[in-house]
Amino acid sequence: MTERYFDDFAVGERFLTRGVTLTESGIIDFSLTYDPQPFQIDVEAARQTIYGGLIASGFQTLALGFRMVSDTGIFRGASMGSPGFDELRWLKPVRPGDTLRVELEVMEKTPSRSKPDRGILRIAYRIKNQKDEDVLTFLAMQLLKRKL
Amino acid sequence: MTERYFDDFAVGERFLTRGVTLTESGIIDFSLTYDPQPFQIDVEAARQTIYGGLIASGFQTLALGFRMVSDTGIFRGASMGSPGFDELRWLKPVRPGDTLRVELEVMEKTPSRSKPDRGILRIAYRIKNQKDEDVLTFLAMQLLKRKL
Repeated sequence: MTERYFDDFAVGERFLTRGVTLTESGIIDFSLTYDPQPFQIDVEAARQTIYGGLIASGFQTLALGFRMVSDTGIFRGASMGSPGFDELRWLKPVRPGDTLRVELEVMEKTPSRSKPDRGILRIAYRIKNQKDEDVLTFLAMQLLKRKL
Repeated sequence: MTERYFDDFAVGERFLTRGVTLTESGIIDFSLTYDPQPFQIDVEAARQTIYGGLIASGFQTLALGFRMVSDTGIFRGASMGSPGFDELRWLKPVRPGDTLRVELEVMEKTPSRSKPDRGILRIAYRIKNQKDEDVLTFLAMQLLKRKL
């Protein structure tokens, strides 16, 4: 994909990533390091919880979703990072064997007033499973270079 | 630490975690997997960016912050996961050698109306560096079991 700048994105534009399948070992390894809750590391204990079995850490779903977006190349070169995210909601458990993909939609474009070399996109992220159910949604701010 | 339930937390209560130091290799390894932006994986390229050097992925700061909170044991046993986070803001870059810790404050307590076995806490997270600067702040919802 050609390098895209702030100016190349249009409000309403959508992108879809490829999929990634989560495995039991991937879920347990990530959770052991960052988020060792029983329903994320212990298959037996997880059965006794409200989730009824092992689920992925929400931080893994989030970071993996961003990796899938990164692989599309849409922010390659022009990304200057993110000031923040809003309204992050984990809507459905993610289980071993689930395949996730991400839908993005550009919601707003705001050129910086003080710094003419950059602008901020508001992007709606929807991370979906193989049944097309939303598992995680959030609104991200993405700082991008402008064409100068 | 003794197991704490929803009922054991008070609005205004604060907690402070121990610290963890981020290393260059830790930052590059995490970013390579989840967030491979040049200023997070390439020391040379990072010098030419607005950050002036290598910085950590915001997802690593977030997940590591949660690990530090997990280690305090305050949510051990009673956590039922999180419905979501709001107002996530990355305020300062995190660089190799920075030591992070987390301050938590209980902002609100809401017992579930439909499910008497649980309640939700609103918790303000402030992840701070060794200069006591906020590097990441957010408001988390934490679902917890009640004492029955």
